[in-house]
Amino acid sequence: MHTSSATDQPPPAAGTGDDETWRIRRTADDLDRLGETESIFALGNGWVGWRGVLDEGAPCGMPGSYVNGLHERRELSYPEEGYAFPQESDTVISAPNAALIRLWVDDEPLDIRTGTLRSHERVLDLRTGVLRRDTEWISPAGRGVRIRSTRLVSLPRRPVAAVRYEVEALDAPVELRVCSDLLANEKVPERSDDPRAASVPTDPLTAESYDANGLDGVLVHRTERSGQRVAVAVSHLVDGPDTVTTTGDCIPDRIRLTVTGRLHPGERLRLTKFAAYEWAAVDGVPADELAALVSAEADAARADGFDALLADQRAALDAAWQVADVRLDGDQELQQAVRFAMFHLIQAGRPDSDRTISAKGLTGNGYDGHVLWDTETYVLPVLTYLAPAVARSALTWRHAHLPEARERARELRLTGATFPWRTIGGRECSGYWPAGTAALHVNADIADAVLRYLAATDDQRFLADAGLELLVETARLWHGFGHWSGDGDFHLHGVTGPDEYAALVDDNVFTNLMAKRNLRGAADAAERHPDLAGRLGVDHDEVAGWRAAADAMVVPYDGEREVHQQAAGFTEQPEWDFANTGEDDYPLLLHFPYLELYRKQVVKQADLVLAMQVCPGEFTAAEKARNLTYYEARTVRDSSLSAAPQAVLAAEVGHLDLAYDLFAESVLQDLADLGDKTADGLHLASLAGAWLALVQGFGGLRDDRGVLSFDPRLPRRIDRLAFSLRWRGHRLRVTLTPTEARYELPDAASDTEVEVWHHGESVRITGAEAVTVPMPQVPDPGPEPASPPGRRPTRRSAA
Amino acid sequence: MHTSSATDQPPPAAGTGDDETWRIRRTADDLDRLGETESIFALGNGWVGWRGVLDEGAPCGMPGSYVNGLHERRELSYPEEGYAFPQESDTVISAPNAALIRLWVDDEPLDIRTGTLRSHERVLDLRTGVLRRDTEWISPAGRGVRIRSTRLVSLPRRPVAAVRYEVEALDAPVELRVCSDLLANEKVPERSDDPRAASVPTDPLTAESYDANGLDGVLVHRTERSGQRVAVAVSHLVDGPDTVTTTGDCIPDRIRLTVTGRLHPGERLRLTKFAAYEWAAVDGVPADELAALVSAEADAARADGFDALLADQRAALDAAWQVADVRLDGDQELQQAVRFAMFHLIQAGRPDSDRTISAKGLTGNGYDGHVLWDTETYVLPVLTYLAPAVARSALTWRHAHLPEARERARELRLTGATFPWRTIGGRECSGYWPAGTAALHVNADIADAVLRYLAATDDQRFLADAGLELLVETARLWHGFGHWSGDGDFHLHGVTGPDEYAALVDDNVFTNLMAKRNLRGAADAAERHPDLAGRLGVDHDEVAGWRAAADAMVVPYDGEREVHQQAAGFTEQPEWDFANTGEDDYPLLLHFPYLELYRKQVVKQADLVLAMQVCPGEFTAAEKARNLTYYEARTVRDSSLSAAPQAVLAAEVGHLDLAYDLFAESVLQDLADLGDKTADGLHLASLAGAWLALVQGFGGLRDDRGVLSFDPRLPRRIDRLAFSLRWRGHRLRVTLTPTEARYELPDAASDTEVEVWHHGESVRITGAEAVTVPMPQVPDPGPEPASPPGRRPTRRSAA
Repeated sequence: MHTSSATDQPPPAAGTGDDETWRIRRTADDLDRLGETESIFALGNGWVGWRGVLDEGAPCGMPGSYVNGLHERRELSYPEEGYAFPQESDTVISAPNAALIRLWVDDEPLDIRTGTLRSHERVLDLRTGVLRRDTEWISPAGRGVRIRSTRLVSLPRRPVAAVRYEVEALDAPVELRVCSDLLANEKVPERSDDPRAASVPTDPLTAESYDANGLDGVLVHRTERSGQRVAVAVSHLVDGPDTVTTTGDCIPDRIRLTVTGRLHPGERLRLTKFAAYEWAAVDGVPADELAALVSAEADAARADGFDALLADQRAALDAAWQVADVRLDGDQELQQAVRFAMFHLIQAGRPDSDRTISAKGLTGNGYDGHVLWDTETYVLPVLTYLAPAVARSALTWRHAHLPEARERARELRLTGATFPWRTIGGRECSGYWPAGTAALHVNADIADAVLRYLAATDDQRFLADAGLELLVETARLWHGFGHWSGDGDFHLHGVTGPDEYAALVDDNVFTNLMAKRNLRGAADAAERHPDLAGRLGVDHDEVAGWRAAADAMVVPYDGEREVHQQAAGFTEQPEWDFANTGEDDYPLLLHFPYLELYRKQVVKQADLVLAMQVCPGEFTAAEKARNLTYYEARTVRDSSLSAAPQAVLAAEVGHLDLAYDLFAESVLQDLADLGDKTADGLHLASLAGAWLALVQGFGGLRDDRGVLSFDPRLPRRIDRLAFSLRWRGHRLRVTLTPTEARYELPDAASDTEVEVWHHGESVRITGAEAVTVPMPQVPDPGPEPASPPGRRPTRRSAA
Repeated sequence: MHTSSATDQPPPAAGTGDDETWRIRRTADDLDRLGETESIFALGNGWVGWRGVLDEGAPCGMPGSYVNGLHERRELSYPEEGYAFPQESDTVISAPNAALIRLWVDDEPLDIRTGTLRSHERVLDLRTGVLRRDTEWISPAGRGVRIRSTRLVSLPRRPVAAVRYEVEALDAPVELRVCSDLLANEKVPERSDDPRAASVPTDPLTAESYDANGLDGVLVHRTERSGQRVAVAVSHLVDGPDTVTTTGDCIPDRIRLTVTGRLHPGERLRLTKFAAYEWAAVDGVPADELAALVSAEADAARADGFDALLADQRAALDAAWQVADVRLDGDQELQQAVRFAMFHLIQAGRPDSDRTISAKGLTGNGYDGHVLWDTETYVLPVLTYLAPAVARSALTWRHAHLPEARERARELRLTGATFPWRTIGGRECSGYWPAGTAALHVNADIADAVLRYLAATDDQRFLADAGLELLVETARLWHGFGHWSGDGDFHLHGVTGPDEYAALVDDNVFTNLMAKRNLRGAADAAERHPDLAGRLGVDHDEVAGWRAAADAMVVPYDGEREVHQQAAGFTEQPEWDFANTGEDDYPLLLHFPYLELYRKQVVKQADLVLAMQVCPGEFTAAEKARNLTYYEARTVRDSSLSAAPQAVLAAEVGHLDLAYDLFAESVLQDLADLGDKTADGLHLASLAGAWLALVQGFGGLRDDRGVLSFDPRLPRRIDRLAFSLRWRGHRLRVTLTPTEARYELPDAASDTEVEVWHHGESVRITGAEAVTVPMPQVPDPGPEPASPPGRRPTRRSAA
């Protein structure tokens, strides 16, 4: 082990200006994948989200302009009703869309499907946080224009989004008409039959007020059933030749600024639009107040100017990338993909909103815009280390919905709190209970996110305000739900674990181990904070009951096959007939009934393997290796949530090529649209999983015992892996090469000291000195575990 | 044992003319339970069914005039879709209603809710098969009339129903107007939220033709989606003073004959209406042909006259009661209830329709008019012995829908045939697959009904035409569905058994034993008929595979508790918290989520107990006693299917008081409306179960080995129990008293000989001589098994 100065590394966000790993580029060749591109180019700041639709709004895969939490409720009906089946569901809806700018050239509308597209390029710049567009278009009548636009959703300014739009006449004078719209109730395509798609209500917003004044305007709308009010203001700047004139008009669902004028070749017309979005409960903020608020915000943005927004955006991203950037030398495509993934994680949440991050973030309306367990199990473990205040926001949102969770528990005749499987507004929205309400593990997932956040931040205020209560109420759920068998074991029967190709099983290992952690975490916290716990009605007996249940929690194991059972009896279920399953039969859920899927040993997504990832201390190394082999052979990865946990475990066991290929699948989920579902929005959990695959997999990070330990091992393709994470207020940077691991605290005072573990040995890092330690040899783990026929991830590890 | 003449017993249908056990009577006191009364007074003949609505159609609980198989299809939609979820469901609809006869007295409509009801009585006569009504009503203006009507649905004439309606002026002359309607698309009340209720489409019938001519008329309608055409003809006779005039009119949905006239006190107006009902596939019989057919049928009935219909009805019932009557001395209320039950079973099916019997028969639209497993498991075991040709009809209907069942198996990626859980037209209509499609036992239930029918009749033609194919295709389902475990056992995992408070379990004993019988039955039949089997593609290897699976079928047993497990692991599930379950919490399914019900040891309805009823040879006497005690304590009887099997087993084990009380619950299900659901239609399975409770329970009939054996034992309340059954073409009559059992063949030639077993000893009965043998003492079975708190059936055994 040797130490060195903490400053001899380039800053993490560095790179040459031409580095394509910081950009995502799409050209005219990509116009047949509009929906996918719109998701990939989505901009957001955790509050406002704009899908990457073309300025002119058409052609379009799926419009979308979201404000976090804005939704409508719709009725659910069942062919056969059942007690406590949710009768309503939340559905994300678009706020009025302020991104639209349409252009007419000599009265012909700009539509890239008509005329001649001389050039067309859109670039998402991951460092500046803008979406740029550059199009040269010759109208059917032969008039040429160049359109450049720059769009951003401001990271530092919560309500603000803006677009700068420029038109230039190319070869001949043109008459232009530019319409900048703020449009409510945009038409959306029909719902598809795929259960994973969204149900989209028609005209969900009812106009309350509309007002345009010169270059400014504001719309206020409300929803009918969810009781929400949304206000959007726009404010414009127009810059062009003297011939240019502007007129404004408004109707209840639209505010339009029309700019007309004649441009000579080389002349430009520039329109800059500043928009501000807010929503509030109808009985919270009156319409005129909300209108005034967004108008002031849009005006302020205009007053500061677009360049100021650009500069602020860059500054915010520079700060974010200091922690979030992951350097991956040796595979440029995946280096780009990782930065893309991290960019969208940066965009997805914010520290000051007390809102959470849905499965698709603000990038699309897949899963109806619902929040699922993905957030706590995949996204928050990353944000806890990169942007802990954002993780706190999301957990505070859960806490705010404890009343609904308690009410749901009462309805289900359970104890404590039962958080919804899917929701926006806080109430259960799952319409298929065996894979919804029965997946009680979401409660332990929330508790786990609380425990991890507390371990990483030691945020006592959060503990007192929200964390302890979340731990206590979820522990109460498990204690009441479980039962003791005659032999003194504690069981959780009739639940559904992560694997959606199984349901209503007994003693799912993932659920049991997570519930055990939940019970112990609540007990520990209650004992450390007896006064706070007392106010929640927790007494010594209750804590003792939690501990007893946790200590006795059963973990099914098949002694004959020497593997854990995903749930009791799993290894005795019939095997899946892979030999007679064709390539076209995947995803299996679209070709086989649950009747077949549930009763057989076929795994949609990591479940026992996920248990080994999140509760690594509960398994020996040998068990992990045997379990990985057993479950790899039965896991078809029909869920985008699967590859990352498999990568982590494959790396831990030493199958680094397989781990690398699984990591690649996780990180390319959306950029390569592997599941053909990216058009509905990005798979944030898969993108977060890519970070976990790198940092937990190759970095070997384990944090389940309140300390940070690393067992790094690099796959062949990677020459260097560097990442950062925040731990107790410090930024720890880890740089791995095939021979060395380097640990440093680049921002810390020289007397700061942090202890981590490196392959089982204590390493003390100070602010003064980085520590470099050798990478041990990874022992040969034997033959690579076999995936189901045809289901091994694409091999890129050896390329 | 001594023998005696076969003729010293009174004929079974005998009784005095005043015997109230042959009548069901309702008066003005019952007008607050209209829907229930309409079901109880429903008339039918297995083809046409008329609910017992008042002649004037109002007040009315729920109108209903059915033709067996007539239905519409409606779309099903799911909050979350799944592969192979049925997209449409059949729903029973009313055919045009020909029962309606409305009366105006001096322009005031007869409505028993207005004016003064001086007397009102309706009587269902179980021997003559008519519903009589006698009402004296004083109009609000003070005009008195007496209305008498007699209604029948003709048992011998499949399409025919008729009503004779008489009005008499009482104290003063009255101007009468009588409207006799044939009305399509009658308004029906809104659907309730209860999952067991019906979904009723509005205006399901589209008029194709309507025609009235003098006193006759015919309507032809079609359905939009199910492709059915229904025609109903009416033909009238009018008899009254000379002042009476008639006019006819028709519109697409209604044919009306209006009779007007003036009656002096004592004068009568009599209107007799003959109706005929047929339906056919739209692409089967053209509209004019169907219209001509029903017109001819109605005309023929009119030509023969109402008195001829009455006489034919009585003759048909006399013949039916010869076999179907059960004499139960000692409890007049239950004697009446048993006759009521048997009357509705006689009415429910017919030998010449190749149609089946739905859960509610033709008495209401509960369960959407669907056929469920009740038919094969409860109703056909009775009809096989009382009216074997009706059982054959129902099984022939199943065979006619083998193509849909094969297609469903392919869709589910299973082998052989998979019959629907709920259907009218043959396709799966279950909208909740864990308690629908997963209840694969329906296939074994059908096979069992085939085997029982064949054993009782030796009907080789049915075997060749339908029976063998049903056995083979269902055996193929089980063989493909099951799997072998390493220890050489054969398993059926992930199915739902009879108990609807459990779902998706492994190795449900009932399912496994029934599948075992199915496999063996198919193997036996195929080996006995190698040519027929060969034509179905059955070879030696396939038969050997069925036998191997049957021989290795696993039957879960808890060696520690010494009871069978309803399904694997059942006895290790958490116990239900009966101490904290209130009276108002029943039925549990309306107050607890499936999440709680499924994972706990709470049983909605006999499941393991039903297995012991239908497969008695698979359990020792000691096992039966222990199992009964264990499951009685956990069975809440939230299903009307439960009491009868429990009664059978309680009787077998020797708990005769409990058995009697359970029998009473089964037989009074509808007459006492125990489940508050009789308004939706009668619970035919519960009514059939009452016969099983008597004949299998107290008569001790067991037939699972191809011979008839009786282990009779009478409960204290019963002085004499006498019943008949058909066996291989003979009518066997059994009369039981506390001391003696008498077996006879009342209709057989003197050289006919039948062997039965009585308490384990062979008894040979000849046509010449009845055999009387002593009833052995029933050994004391120990303390009565405890039911769940508050759930013991009402105690009437000791009264």
